[in-house]
This record gives sequence, structure tokens and C-alpha cells, in this order.
Amino acid sequence: GRRVAASLGQTGRPVLDLVIPAGERFKSRASADRIQDFLLGSGISRTDTVVAVGGGVTSDLVGYAAATVLRGVPWGIVSTTLMGMVDAAIGGKTGVNHRAGKNLIGAFWQPRFVICDPSVLHTLPARHLVAGLGEVVKYAGLVGQEMHSLVESYMMKGDLYDQSLLGRIIRDSIACKAEIVARDETDEGVRRWLNLGHTFAHAIESALGYGRLLHGEAVLIGLAAAVELSILAGVSTNRKSGAYSEMIAKCLRWLPKRKIDGTAALAAMRMDKKRDGTRLNFVLLERPGRPLIRAGIKPALVREALNRAIRLYELHGGRNAPTVSR
Amino acid sequence: GRRVAASLGQTGRPVLDLVIPAGERFKSRASADRIQDFLLGSGISRTDTVVAVGGGVTSDLVGYAAATVLRGVPWGIVSTTLMGMVDAAIGGKTGVNHRAGKNLIGAFWQPRFVICDPSVLHTLPARHLVAGLGEVVKYAGLVGQEMHSLVESYMMKGDLYDQSLLGRIIRDSIACKAEIVARDETDEGVRRWLNLGHTFAHAIESALGYGRLLHGEAVLIGLAAAVELSILAGVSTNRKSGAYSEMIAKCLRWLPKRKIDGTAALAAMRMDKKRDGTRLNFVLLERPGRPLIRAGIKPALVREALNRAIRLYELHGGRNAPTVSR
Repeated sequence: GRRVAASLGQTGRPVLDLVIPAGERFKSRASADRIQDFLLGSGISRTDTVVAVGGGVTSDLVGYAAATVLRGVPWGIVSTTLMGMVDAAIGGKTGVNHRAGKNLIGAFWQPRFVICDPSVLHTLPARHLVAGLGEVVKYAGLVGQEMHSLVESYMMKGDLYDQSLLGRIIRDSIACKAEIVARDETDEGVRRWLNLGHTFAHAIESALGYGRLLHGEAVLIGLAAAVELSILAGVSTNRKSGAYSEMIAKCLRWLPKRKIDGTAALAAMRMDKKRDGTRLNFVLLERPGRPLIRAGIKPALVREALNRAIRLYELHGGRNAPTVSR
Repeated sequence: GRRVAASLGQTGRPVLDLVIPAGERFKSRASADRIQDFLLGSGISRTDTVVAVGGGVTSDLVGYAAATVLRGVPWGIVSTTLMGMVDAAIGGKTGVNHRAGKNLIGAFWQPRFVICDPSVLHTLPARHLVAGLGEVVKYAGLVGQEMHSLVESYMMKGDLYDQSLLGRIIRDSIACKAEIVARDETDEGVRRWLNLGHTFAHAIESALGYGRLLHGEAVLIGLAAAVELSILAGVSTNRKSGAYSEMIAKCLRWLPKRKIDGTAALAAMRMDKKRDGTRLNFVLLERPGRPLIRAGIKPALVREALNRAIRLYELHGGRNAPTVSR
């Protein structure tokens, strides 16, 4: 933050900064109000630019404030987490959580720039690298073989801080997301593929209480559930999803142990934002690289898929992620 | 409200309603939060539609909630005030007030439909008709002669409730605003013409405390100030602006008496949303039909224009508006 402020200061324009607390539970209307108050109290005009320096929570929150102050002021992101770089910073979704569910209040508001410098990740806790990996593994599921091999190399390397592989993974992830968002900015078609594993993940986070697992950690469990549901719904088979299923299972080992109440998670699912009327839509995988959206899945199958994923996680989770260079 | 709900109910889709208090002081983040809570608590999805039934405060507020719930849900307006019909409902500006100034928090979010039925205006208090007239007179300033004559006929008719003239005035006002908004949806060019009189009006409202004068009432005083400033800045002359000036003065007679602190209003102007960096932009009139935007006006001229307008208002205000049919 200080380096960014100093660098911006060299332009000769005044730079004001506000430090906000990190973490999912601060992604709230109260935090957005506080940022709005700061911006308006500082006399912001539409020729000023808001710069979010931080991870996904920061960019979602600051972007929402930028979207709603003066009916929208320009903004940019200097991303400092893997999750921020590969997911939150790309695509213009901003917003905060509501007691009814995650990200239920927000706006589409594209940043003018996004800076992703992998070298800043050497100070990121390993747990946050694994969380970012949740979205990376999702992209591998959407893209298929090519990205699958890269992510596998990264996971097998024995060091999640490996700069070179991190750089390649970030580039491929952004390319995947940007291509999908460019085809469907406002979430009415293919962008919903990006929701792979997320209906489950949001429900798990809501059931646990926000912040008990990082979003990306819940996504990994959600991906396991999505693969299970694809098989249960007859869209895929054990054979087709085998290698991808294994990759997800490997990641689940690196998550901290938490007790997830499957019934509470199912209840939370009722308010997911991607709901179309009263039916729940799910992104399923026919095989890696072949996502599809399926409506009207039987609740019993959803419950079974979720329970299988939770069991897998409870069985394998709690081990240390491989790191060397940090 | 009841008639709209009953009518929508005939479609067979469930209709839920929330009654919110009217008035500028309820155009706040707290009210927006309450509407968001209601919508999310009701399990809204993106295939639902929010319908705002009311005047400008209602549509600004409800539109903002619709813009920010689920990152935007479809909405429409059934407008019940002259101000709502000729101004607030047209153009997709939504938002709430902030202690730093009016409408400083909001979003551009176009309604899918706007229904303006002049027959509902027969229950509108005369004071609100005069307030709506504030925006109508603004359009007459932007359009020039053609609309000037129509508005003059309306004002001379001796009955502000005259259905036929009201209908024509609403149609012409919407046409004027819609044409300008279509050329510049997000307020970067000609749309700023619509701000004629509004920098002054917002400052007056802020100095008085929101709700002491209706927005459209403050606009009428603001229009008087804008015409004075056009002359003081050398853009117009007494002769060129004479007839328009007279029309505004006639309207000022119909405003309730309030004590306006010119110094406080000038202080409030510092935070107007249309500020470009540190300079204040003003919309001036070379003559009716010839608006222009001028930056960097000397503060002394702004003060003098505002004081002249306040004197004019204080001298003539406080009489009854002409009404018969109500």
C-alpha cells in the first residue's frame, strides 16, 4: 500500500489513503458506507480515480464503493493475493455480503486497470495460496487438458511459491476468465460457467459463518460437490471425471479442518443469487473442458453430492501445503 | 399502489409490496438498506421485477435498491407526481442523499418501463405541481420558444390541474429529457445541460436542510440564479433572457416562504457532484434554447447571482398557486 501511494504521489496529484480491515466478514454494507463516507468526505470528483490495493475482499468492496459514489467513479486494482489476481480483479463484479447470502448486494463496474505482479505473492500466507488455487482448479475444469497439465505441474512442484509456475498459472487463469466475461459481461449466459462449484461453496460459507473458511477453500469443496453432482445427475461418469476429481482431492488435503453442517448449507442454498425463480441452476461438467448449465436438479441429488464432498474433505483435510521458497 | 398491485396480481405471478415513507429526508442509505433487506428477504431473483409506485424520491430510492440487489434486477416506474413524470422517471439516474450532498450515492440503472398517467395528478397537492413545474420551466429554458409558449399557456390558464395542458407539458418534457439522455447516458456531455439551475438548487436544499423546500421548488430559485449568472458572466443580456426571466419570477410567487442562508448555500456548493476537480461547472443560458457549460466561473459572480435570486424569491414568494378543478 505504501509503495503504491508513493508511486502515485510522483504523478503530482494528491493521494489520500484509507486502510480497511481484511476478511470476508468486513465485506459488508457497513464497510461500503465507511468507504463512501471517506471518498465523499474527501471531496472526490469524477476525474479522480479510486485504487484498491489488496485481495478479493478489498477489490469487491472498494469497487462497489467506486460504483456507487457519484453514480460511479473510475477505479483500478493492484491485486495482492492469488485469489484477487485470478478471479476477483477480473470481470467487474463488485459487491458486499448480506445476511441472506454472499455478494447479494453489488454492481457490475469494470476497473480501468488491474495490476497482477506475482512477486508480491511471496508474503502471502500459504493458506491464501491454496484458496486462490481453488479458482485456478475451477478454470482447469472449464478449460480442460491444456490447463489441467499446468496446474498439475504446479501442484506437484513441491513449492506453491514457485514464481515461474505462479506467473503462468495467473496468466492462463486470467485468459480463461477474461474470455468468458468478454462473451457475457452481465451473467446471462456463459459467464455462469464461472459459477462452477460456487453454489455449493457459497452455501458452505454461509452455513459455517463467513470467514471460517476462505472463499477459495470453500470453492474447492464446492468443486468436489459439482463433480459428484455431475455423476449423480448422469451428465458425467467416474471415468470421465477421474483425473479432475483426483486433482481436487489433492487440494482438499491442504484445507484446514472445519465441521460443516450439510443441512444448514442446503438451507442456505435457497438464496443463492444465480437462482432462476424457484429452481436452482447448477454448472456441471460433462468432462474437463465441457461445462454445461442444468436447471431443476432434484434436491436429493444435490444433498447427496454435497454430503459426499464434505466426507471427502473431512477424511483428507488438515495437512500442510507444500512450500519451500517462502 | 393498491390498484397497481391488484393489476399485477392478475398476471398470476406473486406480488409483494412494501410501503416506504415519502419525502427527501427518507432518500437515504438507511431507506435503501431497508428496501434491499425486503427484496432479499423475499427471495428475489433476477427474473423478478421491482415496480416503484410514487414520485421522484420513491423512484430514485427504489431504482437504487433495484440497481444494487443481485447486482441489478429489472425495474419499472408508475409515476404519481409531476416531478416524477417529467424528470425523475426518465434517464436511469437512481440514488440517495449523503450528508455531503444530494444524490451523491447512486447508480445509472435504466427502468424497463415508465408509466405516466396525467389523470393520477388530480390528487397531487398543488405545491407538488408547482415543484414539478420547476423542471418543466427548466426544459423550456433548454428547448426555447416552442416549449416556452406551451408552458406560458399552462401558467396563464388559471388552473394548474388542467388535464389537457398537463398532458402536453408532460409529453414535451419527457421528449426533451429523453432526447438529451439518449445522446449522453452517463453525464459526460450534453446531459449536463439538464443540470441548469441545479447546482444552485442542491446548495439551497442542503443549506435549508432536506425537505424544507421540495426539490423542484429549489430548482425554480436555482433557475433564477442561473439566469442571473448568465448575465453576470457576460454570456447573456437582460434583453435576451427577459421573457424567460419573467416566467421564472411568476413561478417564484407560488413557493412557500423560507429563510435561505446564502453563505451556507455557497459552502454546500463545494461538494456538488458535477464538480470537475476543484472548479465548479455551471450551465448557463445564452438565451432560451441555447444552453452552454462554463467552467471556472468566479466565486464572486456565483455569490451575487445566488443573492439576487434569493432576494427575488423572498420578495415575491408565498402566494397561492392558481387551481380550480381539484
